[in-house]
Amino acid sequence: MSTATTPAKGAATRELILEQAYQLARHDGMEGLSIGALASGVGMSKSGVFAHFGSREDLQLALLEAVSARFVAFILHPALKQPRGLPRLRAIVENWMEWGRIHATGCVLLGAATEYDGRADSPLRERVVKQQSDWRNEIKRAIALAVEAGDFRPDTDATLLAFEIYSLMLGLHHDAGLFGFDQASRCTRAALDRLFASYRP
Amino acid sequence: MSTATTPAKGAATRELILEQAYQLARHDGMEGLSIGALASGVGMSKSGVFAHFGSREDLQLALLEAVSARFVAFILHPALKQPRGLPRLRAIVENWMEWGRIHATGCVLLGAATEYDGRADSPLRERVVKQQSDWRNEIKRAIALAVEAGDFRPDTDATLLAFEIYSLMLGLHHDAGLFGFDQASRCTRAALDRLFASYRP
Repeated sequence: MSTATTPAKGAATRELILEQAYQLARHDGMEGLSIGALASGVGMSKSGVFAHFGSREDLQLALLEAVSARFVAFILHPALKQPRGLPRLRAIVENWMEWGRIHATGCVLLGAATEYDGRADSPLRERVVKQQSDWRNEIKRAIALAVEAGDFRPDTDATLLAFEIYSLMLGLHHDAGLFGFDQASRCTRAALDRLFASYRP
Repeated sequence: MSTATTPAKGAATRELILEQAYQLARHDGMEGLSIGALASGVGMSKSGVFAHFGSREDLQLALLEAVSARFVAFILHPALKQPRGLPRLRAIVENWMEWGRIHATGCVLLGAATEYDGRADSPLRERVVKQQSDWRNEIKRAIALAVEAGDFRPDTDATLLAFEIYSLMLGLHHDAGLFGFDQASRCTRAALDRLFASYRP
């Protein structure tokens, strides 16, 4: 039994550490993550934390993966229940806005994009670029399906529209933090309506 | 003579400290600003720095003011030579994109907006909110002049359009850091063209 229990317990501890790391990174960013604060937060020694993650960078990479999986599960997965086309794209954007509302005081993924965008090549930067690129491709896929469904014109530039949508989500996050979520989300919804209308056949 | 020389020398030293603080904040952000690193960077003691700025917060506030003045001088002032209306608004946006290119690895103002957006009320947060609000008002003023000039429809919502423009500039900054400035600026220009066209009479 003990051989079966130990990996399960190890996985649970790993989860616990990642959850604590997530809470810390929401406030201090990925780079502000202190292993000392993390260890004391979960009642372990630093070496206990390092027994689960070989290095601070390994922990940061695992945290990025975990938050990204959470982001996709929150935004994309429920939207897949909507019919392909504009309804699904709208569901993605609505869920994304709700993510923005919940994480108004700090989104770890967006923070990581800011922290690593100007850094020299590193495994963390590579991971952030790949995650951002993968997410942009998901939006482009939803746009392509909307074109197929006849909701957008055939000459719709999916790369451009995905950039326009992403920019509005950045605007929402920015304005929500400074001027409040309600005002920011009103502007964002109005801008999205105008944007989608501009691509209608 | 000495009473006239001393304030001038004091102002020069203050400028020197602010310039060094700016260079540090470009990399580490406003909150990462270390008075120790700053003092050694300008060859002074910490107390020498504090003789010019009463506290770290006073220095941060002065830095915000200085960078904001630089931003406005770079983006708005040259654009005022263009005729009122779309030409001036386009000049503002072009200069803003150029600012984004120069500061691709870190804009102190945008960094400050991210650092202080979720913080409890503080003089720094208040200053950031006021600066962002003032800048949004400048864009709205340029939009209003474009409406007056007949370049945009009379029912143009200046608040909404200013948000849409700001969002695209955030998108530019975000994508430039991750995917390169050239690709990001192509998308941004195409999106701005579509946006401005959507408000034409």
